Amino acid sequence: MSKKVPNRILLTEDRMPKQWYNVRADMPEQHEPYINPATMKPAEFEDLTPIFAEELCKQEVTLERYVDIPDEVLEYYKKYRPSPLIRAYNLEKLLDTPARIYYKYEGNNTSGSHKLNSAIAQVYYNKKQGIERITTETGAGQWGTALSMACAYFNMPLRVYMVRISYDQKPYRKEVMKTYGADVFPSPSNTTEIGRSILAKDPENTGSLGTAISEAIEMALNTPNTRYSLGSVLNQVLLHQSIIGIESKMQLEMVDEYPDYVIGCAGGGSNLGGLMSAFMQDKLTGKANPHFIAVEPSACPSFTRGKYAYDYCDVGRITPLAKMYTLGSDFIPASIHAGGLRYHGMSPTLSKLYHDGYIDEARAVGQKDVFDAAVLFAKYEAILPAPESSHAIRAALDVALECKERGEAKTILFGLTGNGNFDLGAYASYNRGEMENYSPSDEEIQKGLSNLK
Amino acid sequence: MSKKVPNRILLTEDRMPKQWYNVRADMPEQHEPYINPATMKPAEFEDLTPIFAEELCKQEVTLERYVDIPDEVLEYYKKYRPSPLIRAYNLEKLLDTPARIYYKYEGNNTSGSHKLNSAIAQVYYNKKQGIERITTETGAGQWGTALSMACAYFNMPLRVYMVRISYDQKPYRKEVMKTYGADVFPSPSNTTEIGRSILAKDPENTGSLGTAISEAIEMALNTPNTRYSLGSVLNQVLLHQSIIGIESKMQLEMVDEYPDYVIGCAGGGSNLGGLMSAFMQDKLTGKANPHFIAVEPSACPSFTRGKYAYDYCDVGRITPLAKMYTLGSDFIPASIHAGGLRYHGMSPTLSKLYHDGYIDEARAVGQKDVFDAAVLFAKYEAILPAPESSHAIRAALDVALECKERGEAKTILFGLTGNGNFDLGAYASYNRGEMENYSPSDEEIQKGLSNLK
Repeated sequence: MSKKVPNRILLTEDRMPKQWYNVRADMPEQHEPYINPATMKPAEFEDLTPIFAEELCKQEVTLERYVDIPDEVLEYYKKYRPSPLIRAYNLEKLLDTPARIYYKYEGNNTSGSHKLNSAIAQVYYNKKQGIERITTETGAGQWGTALSMACAYFNMPLRVYMVRISYDQKPYRKEVMKTYGADVFPSPSNTTEIGRSILAKDPENTGSLGTAISEAIEMALNTPNTRYSLGSVLNQVLLHQSIIGIESKMQLEMVDEYPDYVIGCAGGGSNLGGLMSAFMQDKLTGKANPHFIAVEPSACPSFTRGKYAYDYCDVGRITPLAKMYTLGSDFIPASIHAGGLRYHGMSPTLSKLYHDGYIDEARAVGQKDVFDAAVLFAKYEAILPAPESSHAIRAALDVALECKERGEAKTILFGLTGNGNFDLGAYASYNRGEMENYSPSDEEIQKGLSNLK
Repeated sequence: MSKKVPNRILLTEDRMPKQWYNVRADMPEQHEPYINPATMKPAEFEDLTPIFAEELCKQEVTLERYVDIPDEVLEYYKKYRPSPLIRAYNLEKLLDTPARIYYKYEGNNTSGSHKLNSAIAQVYYNKKQGIERITTETGAGQWGTALSMACAYFNMPLRVYMVRISYDQKPYRKEVMKTYGADVFPSPSNTTEIGRSILAKDPENTGSLGTAISEAIEMALNTPNTRYSLGSVLNQVLLHQSIIGIESKMQLEMVDEYPDYVIGCAGGGSNLGGLMSAFMQDKLTGKANPHFIAVEPSACPSFTRGKYAYDYCDVGRITPLAKMYTLGSDFIPASIHAGGLRYHGMSPTLSKLYHDGYIDEARAVGQKDVFDAAVLFAKYEAILPAPESSHAIRAALDVALECKERGEAKTILFGLTGNGNFDLGAYASYNRGEMENYSPSDEEIQKGLSNLK
C-alpha cells in the first residue's frame, strides 16, 4: 500500500448495498429447527406467524442467499449509513504493534448502536402487513431506542418492556424512547400474567431480559393485530445486520485490505453475525480463511461455559425452543455486571457455526479489563465506546499485542457496535474503582444448566 | 441539478481544509478593543497572556486571513471530521416546501457537539507552550466534555468549573469528563475567592456561566503555569470553528448549491461564527449575498433585546470588557429555560457584524416551539438534536414555510451543532408537557442592562 490509508474510510450512498446476505445459504448444515413448546415438535411456519410479521417469518427460515432491501428501508438507512470504517492509528502507535487495526463504527445514530439496522426493517414489514402495534423488550435500552425510532418513523405504536433495573437506573434511556413516542413499562409488570406471577412471588424482582421477552410476547399474542419484535438471536436479525459486514468488506477493499481476524462482541449474536457475514461467506465458500473471534463477558459466558442444547429463549417459556449455546433460561448474570451482553442464550445460527468450527474461537473477558480497554480507546480514538463494544476492543487489543509478540503484521477488524453515551452509570462505577472481573462459580453455571436436557 | 443529491454529502479526509479562515481579515471595520478592567484602557497583548496561551492571544488579535491548522490538530480532526452535510429530504416532504434544506451535523463525536473543534486546538497550543494545567468552565457540559477529550489526548491536566445546577442535574455529563480524566467542581465552589464570596451571601446559589468563568480564570491566574480556556465568544474560537463553514461550502459546491439562507443558533457565537465563516467572506467581498439569521432563545435574547455596549464577560468582573450585544453580566436566564444558549453576551466579532448589518437578522424563539421542532426533527431525520441546535431547526422550519407561502425554491443551510443524548432531562420536561415559551419581562431586561454604560 503506497497510498496512506485514511483514518475514516467512507462509502458513499450510491455504493450502499441493496441486498442483505443470508449466511445460511452457504452453510453446509443448518441449525436444528425451532421447537413449539406446546407440542414439543418442530415449529411450523404457522407457529411463528402469530408472533412475528409474515415476511419476517419467511426470513427466519429462508435459504435464499440474497434478500433485497426494500426501498423504504434503504431510504432510512441513508440517514445514517453507510457507516464509517475507521483505522485505529493511535492505538496501533500506542501498542507499538505491527498489526493494522480497523473498526466498523455503528454508533453514529441516535439509538447509539447497530440495532437500528434491524429495527427499521422489522417495523417496515409489520407496517406493510397492516399490523397496528408492536411489542418488544429492552435491557440496557439500545434495542428499545432503535425500535422507538423506527416506529416513530413509520407511525407505528410501540410498547416496550424494559428490564426494571435498567428502567430505574437509566431514566434517560426511557426518556429517549418516550420522546420517540413509545410506551415504556418496567418489567416485570402487572400488565401480563407472567409479570403478575413473578411479582406475586417476589415484588422486588428487578427483572431480566428473559422475563421482559415473555411479557412482550404474551402481550403481542393477547392483543389484536399486534406482533412482537426481537433485536437479536434470530436469523432475520442476522440477515438485516449483514449490511455491517458487506460494507466493511467493501471498505477494506477500498484500501486493499482483507482481515486476518474478525472480532465481535456476542450477546445474542446480532453484531457478530452482522459483522462477520460477508467474511464468513468467503470462509464457507473457500475463498478466504479469516479467524473469527466471538467475545463475551466472563459474567455471562454462553459460548465458553454454556451447553449446546435446546432451550427456551425466555424465562416464561412461551417462546419456541432453539438449539443453541445457553447457560439455561433461568440464568441471570450477577447484578455487578454492568457491561451488557446479559442474554443467557446465543443465536442458533452462530451457535451452529461455532459448534462446527467456522467461528474459530470464543473468548470470555472480565469487565474490569473491558473498561480498561474502553477508557484507553476513548482517549485515543475520541469515541466513548459502549460497554458491549468494549469487549471487542479488549480482544482486539489483546490480539494486536499477540501479533506484536509474534512480529506479525496482521489485519484486525473489530465491530464497534455503539457508543457509551447512555452508559455513564457503568463508567461512573469504573471511575470510582468499583469494577471487578467477575466470573460465576461452577456451581452457579451448573444450576443454570440443570434444567436443560 | 440532474443528479439526485445524496442524503449525506461526505467529504473525504484528503479534502479536509488545512487552514482556518479568519473573518476579521475581510471586515471593513473591527470590533472595539477589549478593555483591561484594572486600568479601563484598551487591553494590551501582555494583559491577555497570563490568561491564554500566547499563540491563542495572537489569534485573538490577528488580521491574517488564513491560519494554518497544525498537523497535530489535523490528525485529531481526522478522527471525526470532515463532518457530514445532510439533506433534510424528509422534512422538506413533510412541510411540502419548495425550499431545499441542508444541515451541517457536528454531533458525531463523543463531546456531542462542534465544541471539540476549538478544544483540540486550544489544548494543542497550550501544550506546545509548555503549559501544565488548564482551567475552564462548563454550563450544559458540552464544552467541558470537549475540552476533557482534548486534554486526555494531549495528556494535559484539566480542572472544570461546572455550573452547579448542571452539576447536580446532569450527573452523566460529569462522568464523561471524569472518564476523560478531568477534575470537575461545582460552581460556585469554595476553591476561589469569587466562589467563596458568592456562597457566603447565598449558600444555595445554583451558579451561572458568568460565575464559573470567573472561578476558572481566578484559578488560572493564581496557579503556576496554568492557563484558562474558553469555548465561545472569542475570536480564536471563531477562527477554529471556521472549519464548519469551509467544509459546508465545499460540500454544497459538490451538489451545485449555494445557500440563500444561513441559519445558526447563537449563545456566545461559536457555532454561528463557524458556520457562516466562508459564506460571510463571500458577502464581505461582494461575491454573494446570503441571508444570515442568528437564532437565540427568547429567555436569553442578547441580540434582539440586549444593548450593544461594553460589558464584562463574567459575573466576577475579572475578564477584560468587550463591546458586544449583552443583557448585562448580572443577567441570569430563568431556571425554567432548559434550552442552553444561556450566556448574557455575544461574540464581539458577531456583534459587530450584526451591528453593521452583515448578519441580516436575529430571531428569538420560545423553548416550547423549539422542542416541538426538535421532536419533529428527531422523528424524520433520525437524530435527537441538542436543545441549542434545535433553535436553528425551529428557524429553518419557519423559513422553509415562508418559502412555501411565497413559492420560492430557496436553499437553506442550518447548523446542527450537536446531539441531545445528554439533554434527556430537558426532553423529559417536554414529554411531561411542562415546557413553556418564556420571555423575560421588560423590567427584568432593564435590570440586567442597568449596570452598562
